[in-house]
Amino acid sequence: MTKKAIVLLSGGLDSSTVLAKAKKDGYEVYALSFDYGQRHDAELDAARNIARRENVAEHKVVPMNLRTIGGSALTDDTIDVPTEESEGIPATYVPARNTVFLSIALGWAEVVDADAIFIGVSAVDYSGYPDCRPEYIAAYETMANLATKRGVEGRPVKIETPLINLTKAQTVELGLSLGVDYSLTVSCYQANENGEACGQCDSCRLRKKGFEQLGVQDPTRYAV
Amino acid sequence: MTKKAIVLLSGGLDSSTVLAKAKKDGYEVYALSFDYGQRHDAELDAARNIARRENVAEHKVVPMNLRTIGGSALTDDTIDVPTEESEGIPATYVPARNTVFLSIALGWAEVVDADAIFIGVSAVDYSGYPDCRPEYIAAYETMANLATKRGVEGRPVKIETPLINLTKAQTVELGLSLGVDYSLTVSCYQANENGEACGQCDSCRLRKKGFEQLGVQDPTRYAV
Repeated sequence: MTKKAIVLLSGGLDSSTVLAKAKKDGYEVYALSFDYGQRHDAELDAARNIARRENVAEHKVVPMNLRTIGGSALTDDTIDVPTEESEGIPATYVPARNTVFLSIALGWAEVVDADAIFIGVSAVDYSGYPDCRPEYIAAYETMANLATKRGVEGRPVKIETPLINLTKAQTVELGLSLGVDYSLTVSCYQANENGEACGQCDSCRLRKKGFEQLGVQDPTRYAV
Repeated sequence: MTKKAIVLLSGGLDSSTVLAKAKKDGYEVYALSFDYGQRHDAELDAARNIARRENVAEHKVVPMNLRTIGGSALTDDTIDVPTEESEGIPATYVPARNTVFLSIALGWAEVVDADAIFIGVSAVDYSGYPDCRPEYIAAYETMANLATKRGVEGRPVKIETPLINLTKAQTVELGLSLGVDYSLTVSCYQANENGEACGQCDSCRLRKKGFEQLGVQDPTRYAV
């Protein structure tokens, strides 16, 4: 029987690489994206294009308006996206975002009887979000297998994080070896309506650094 | 400083009791309900009435359509709500529902800086859902404090489950001592548009049994 995996797909560099890795590992892929009141739709358009190119078994875009909760520069228009590195947890941190996303993924995993959930977190070149650390992922997996039918039946679901120990440059290197088309991906926190990146936010800066370190041309279109 | 709590409020008997308990324990209450594609709106109307009566600091109803995922008699019209007890996990189990709800609560807890999240699960008179067991709740709390700013800062959020060791009769007893108006609550999985309960589903049967054991009149309006 073919193994199945839910892949959290934002349309950015990391999740697109993870999707390619799940396919390479032999999984039939169920891609999951969220319309969570992002500042722009470019990210979701990118997710759709990537899912189509990678021929996934199914791609769901689940509406979930985190704006009703607010508390982040990504979901509250009154908070500015920072353009410089900051100490501690940055303003772009969306409260409990990975926990919310993994939980919907867990529900879908039960429905399609998936063996794994893939998420593109990294504890190396990351923005200081607590929910990107290996100890968080391990605790999530433990909880998930107490929460669900599969867990009770002794067929645990795995939370797979193939990028967790990779730098951004190593992620790009992995993705290129798997044939990821990075021109389709959007990483910027505040891309404009044409899908052009700002080049200044944390996410843009991390992406740029990754391509530079690898000595490869970044196909991202920048607005400036 | 007043302690704050997020209370998951479905509009049923258990969550209404929990809300009263959180107030009794000195918390300022932020009530959270979900419009998740339930079979009927009576439950949400009940939640609104209870929140108003209990004078909560804020009541949010978050739209979250679990129908996009399906897999349960409560969110998929093609699956019947069972009217008899069954072995194992029943058809009304919504995949990962408590995990999804707690995760949104966790996000809101970060935004309002809440000290606790209250959820009305019970491991005694319950329907056999894996995500109602104490070991699940403990694992959730561990995960939550690795996921969030508060956890990182050493100010952990508590997951409070005041009903976990109570029978349904004991829950009703607690609620009556706290002044809960059970005529406002709706427990039925398939109440009709007038808010009348079916009297036959698992949730109705458990509720009836609780009032009977306590020797108290249940103010629920039944359709038959």
